[in-house]
Amino acid sequence: MSRPALLSLDDALLQLLAHAQALSRVQTVSTFDADGRVLAQDVVSALHVPPQDNSAMDGYAVRAADCVQAGAVLRVTQRIPAGAHGTQLSAGEAARIFTGAPIPPGADAVIMQEECESLDGGTHVKIGKAVSAGLCIRRSGEDVARGAKVLAQGTRLTPAELGLAASIGLAQLQVAARPRVALFSTGDELVMPGDVAPEAMPPGAIYNSNRFFLRAMLMRLGCEVTDLGIVPDNREATIAALRDAAQHHDLILTSGGVSVGEEDHIKPAVQALGELNLWQLAIKPGKPVAYGRVNRKADGQADACHFLGLPGNPVSSFVTFLLLVRPFVLALQGVTQTDIARTALPAHFDWPRADKRREFLRVKRNAQGGLDLFPNQSSGVLTSAVWGDGVVDNPVGQTIAKGDTVHFISFAEWLT
Amino acid sequence: MSRPALLSLDDALLQLLAHAQALSRVQTVSTFDADGRVLAQDVVSALHVPPQDNSAMDGYAVRAADCVQAGAVLRVTQRIPAGAHGTQLSAGEAARIFTGAPIPPGADAVIMQEECESLDGGTHVKIGKAVSAGLCIRRSGEDVARGAKVLAQGTRLTPAELGLAASIGLAQLQVAARPRVALFSTGDELVMPGDVAPEAMPPGAIYNSNRFFLRAMLMRLGCEVTDLGIVPDNREATIAALRDAAQHHDLILTSGGVSVGEEDHIKPAVQALGELNLWQLAIKPGKPVAYGRVNRKADGQADACHFLGLPGNPVSSFVTFLLLVRPFVLALQGVTQTDIARTALPAHFDWPRADKRREFLRVKRNAQGGLDLFPNQSSGVLTSAVWGDGVVDNPVGQTIAKGDTVHFISFAEWLT
Repeated sequence: MSRPALLSLDDALLQLLAHAQALSRVQTVSTFDADGRVLAQDVVSALHVPPQDNSAMDGYAVRAADCVQAGAVLRVTQRIPAGAHGTQLSAGEAARIFTGAPIPPGADAVIMQEECESLDGGTHVKIGKAVSAGLCIRRSGEDVARGAKVLAQGTRLTPAELGLAASIGLAQLQVAARPRVALFSTGDELVMPGDVAPEAMPPGAIYNSNRFFLRAMLMRLGCEVTDLGIVPDNREATIAALRDAAQHHDLILTSGGVSVGEEDHIKPAVQALGELNLWQLAIKPGKPVAYGRVNRKADGQADACHFLGLPGNPVSSFVTFLLLVRPFVLALQGVTQTDIARTALPAHFDWPRADKRREFLRVKRNAQGGLDLFPNQSSGVLTSAVWGDGVVDNPVGQTIAKGDTVHFISFAEWLT
Repeated sequence: MSRPALLSLDDALLQLLAHAQALSRVQTVSTFDADGRVLAQDVVSALHVPPQDNSAMDGYAVRAADCVQAGAVLRVTQRIPAGAHGTQLSAGEAARIFTGAPIPPGADAVIMQEECESLDGGTHVKIGKAVSAGLCIRRSGEDVARGAKVLAQGTRLTPAELGLAASIGLAQLQVAARPRVALFSTGDELVMPGDVAPEAMPPGAIYNSNRFFLRAMLMRLGCEVTDLGIVPDNREATIAALRDAAQHHDLILTSGGVSVGEEDHIKPAVQALGELNLWQLAIKPGKPVAYGRVNRKADGQADACHFLGLPGNPVSSFVTFLLLVRPFVLALQGVTQTDIARTALPAHFDWPRADKRREFLRVKRNAQGGLDLFPNQSSGVLTSAVWGDGVVDNPVGQTIAKGDTVHFISFAEWLT
């Protein structure tokens, strides 16, 4: 009747991230193809953005001193489309100007065309309101100043960062190489979809589903995934699969085979090839998780491949991936900030049973801004993760009453 | 001094979605590769998941009637690993059982091994607590019942849905074809990063940045993107580019060239080839947006390619993409639910100036659970979208005081 001590999620994550040294491999990619990748260098701007003061509007560039009152009539002496540049603007003059075009010397404001009236076939313009200096001018360097660090090493790139890098002229970016992850499942009961039709499934057999979402989530996180399939439930096959995978991968990820049941062959196999820490985490779902290292050479541990073993229950596998594997593979790419945003939202449900483990309850935001609970929180039920759009991170020993404020994590934040 | 009437965002979106008929092309893809795609069929389960009652734990299957009190000693008569199946369990007997293994006939509960004590070399077991029927049993069909619709046509697939589809044996899924989107920018002032070094940029020139984030966002939404580059600021080139693009695409997306400035050639070109609606939206950033259709054949409008024109300012382009193009390209794939989740959060800033347009203020969640405002909300400043992790959707005419509850939209929700 031994009961292994439970490890807290925070302690497990700390231990895990201490092992997740950033990989040294970097890669140069087109800025077009850098979405989701992690910067391997600081990005410093070689220029001002915008490069010079320019017009924020289609309209007329003027000297504010000429327009202290509404109704000023100015002579239109030049025309500056975007891409062109103007000449000196003298007193009493206006320049027809378009969005993005540089402000001509002498001008200090732009008035939008909707507030102007073109006169005498366009040779003059009547300015409809009083104008103050600086109006509708985008200042040189307003977006980015020359020499400024605009993006830091370790930043995970999203579309906005690609745009910013392009705006300072960068056609290529140095990014961390994709972590190479070998993925497999263990369990003789597992059958691959397509191999056996539903009506022909033998008793005890179940379809493998974990590899489908684990692979998709790894790819969303920038990993290169090798799918090694289902490894038979015996020690020799497992050792052979692990040894082979270690040679060409940074991480071996498995689901199943890490609980304390004696039918699991993953544990002795990893132990034979390196080292293994078996954790019973104080979280629900997702208790058994293992971290280890598989040596690449027979003579020592200097060169080893990471090993992470997730539980076999689909929801446990899904949740432990997001809590532990996600920050781990991001850290392998040099991401320093792997925390996930939590939002305080009202529970629109009761959760009367306190648990001694920290719970991640599958919930969905409703139209009233609150959270509804999926009725079946069993860890085998993957529909909860499909129905829900996130989880409540519920502390140890905490009950929830309708109206209580709880910590919500959106799947979108985790999966982006 | 004409001032065109402003259209509300909601009205524009309604008009836009009325045009966005789902494309009829479908495609069969491996479930492994279906992440982010949209289901073109309902998915109905041909089996129960799990297929039979099975053990949620490694432990012992028992008859609850034998264990009404703690301390019962039972004879261990069989052993059922996952993938195997057991035989009839009689009174006074227990079966060693492992997670996922089917419950043997006669047994009605499982007790986890941590609460048992193996006796006499494993021939007997002492059950550490009283056991009630149903304990630690996962019921057949608990996750999915045979005949149930588990996923509806129009669902956008995420990793969890792939797992669920796999768990009912689906190796392939029917999904909507990727919308084919032709992307280009207009503006003689635009230079592609890499074509000219920062120190050699001529006056008035700026780097094109919009195509980088627009392309990345389209790809995140499942589109197949053709990059047509920067089209010169003249009517003939623009007409030629549009006519050509319309032949092989579902949507032409441009940035720049849709404001009321006379230097824009997009408008007359689309009008010459089909029809165009120019909108001045009551939103900030992002005022000028155009929707139109480009006929594929000279003789009529029956067969036309959609056209969407976004403003050229980077932030305007970014925000109008998320507000309008995102739901549009999802609707082309048959997604019926394109709304985005808003969360009520406290503003940790003041916004004293009410605007007559609905504003999308770039903000960042802070460690205290509130929102900080990016100081420069100018629409040319793309750094606001990099610094921020979302926007506040601020109604027309609304000021914000520190502590007020505002509507936050996370970029993660928009970009997933």
